[in-house]
Amino acid sequence: MDPSNLPVDNVIAETTHLRFLNRGGWSYVERNNSTGVVCILARTSENRIILVEQHRPPVDCKVIELPAGLAGDLVDQADEQLEVAARRELLEETGYQAEQLRRATAVTSSAGLTNEVVTMFIADGLKKVAPGGGDESENIIVHEVALDEIDDWLIRAQASGKLVDSRVYAGLYFLLRNDGTQT
Amino acid sequence: MDPSNLPVDNVIAETTHLRFLNRGGWSYVERNNSTGVVCILARTSENRIILVEQHRPPVDCKVIELPAGLAGDLVDQADEQLEVAARRELLEETGYQAEQLRRATAVTSSAGLTNEVVTMFIADGLKKVAPGGGDESENIIVHEVALDEIDDWLIRAQASGKLVDSRVYAGLYFLLRNDGTQT
Repeated sequence: MDPSNLPVDNVIAETTHLRFLNRGGWSYVERNNSTGVVCILARTSENRIILVEQHRPPVDCKVIELPAGLAGDLVDQADEQLEVAARRELLEETGYQAEQLRRATAVTSSAGLTNEVVTMFIADGLKKVAPGGGDESENIIVHEVALDEIDDWLIRAQASGKLVDSRVYAGLYFLLRNDGTQT
Repeated sequence: MDPSNLPVDNVIAETTHLRFLNRGGWSYVERNNSTGVVCILARTSENRIILVEQHRPPVDCKVIELPAGLAGDLVDQADEQLEVAARRELLEETGYQAEQLRRATAVTSSAGLTNEVVTMFIADGLKKVAPGGGDESENIIVHEVALDEIDDWLIRAQASGKLVDSRVYAGLYFLLRNDGTQT
């Protein structure tokens, strides 16, 4: 979409990270500190999927997600490319470097209440080069889950009170569709 | 989670549909007009997947989504069960009644910026009983897409400037995982 053609928005309120807007009577939020959002479905050579777990204040519980983050949220990297951001976030959160990274798709998070669109990447050829765990503002647990056990693992996580982000399943779809290693 | 144990939130702003909140320095939005959100991966007897398309003001373009809606958003149905809401929304938006409806999972939309959790259902045994298209406030186009062509169809939709919601792919994962009809 061409931003110059967008309807005029009224800012209802704004915090450090979010802007609450009204567009022709429809209210929603946008991130005001980034140029894009990325997530990465990363698979190790042992066919394990890398998931991250962190407490999310809005739902007040632990959430299982794909490694993810914002592009262009650092002061000196406002024009950071999405693929560069994906590689940086994967390394920061999980300690893995990816040999191959390919864009799978881009998806809306919940287009009735936010303009957030997340670009999804599939990472292969992983090499562990750092401990991971996120930057100083994050408290991230990294899980490496065997692909053929991941459905049960996610069910157990939910049974123990955790939530799962929709992109975990969306990412698994792309993996499953493209190589059929899981049946 | 037990709502009585939640940290106290400050309301920053509120509109008809959304409440913008601050929880210990973390801002997010919540829907203030429903008790839950549901979506439905519905498959016809001809192995077609039912998708809906509607303009979403926050992203200012057409979005391809699973049939979805709010539970408990009608004045006289505040305690509406999620499965009842799923059946109602499927009928309203697509005109289909489902013989079988099973809960697949529940997923967060974007737990850094909203507390929205969407419960996903898989519907089978569909029977067309009404035209669909949503209620008077909605303007919904219904698509029935052959399962073995859906990846290409979604790629073409995106190439034409539409966006796709993450739950479309998440729903397809559940379908694929459970019956392996698409390879």
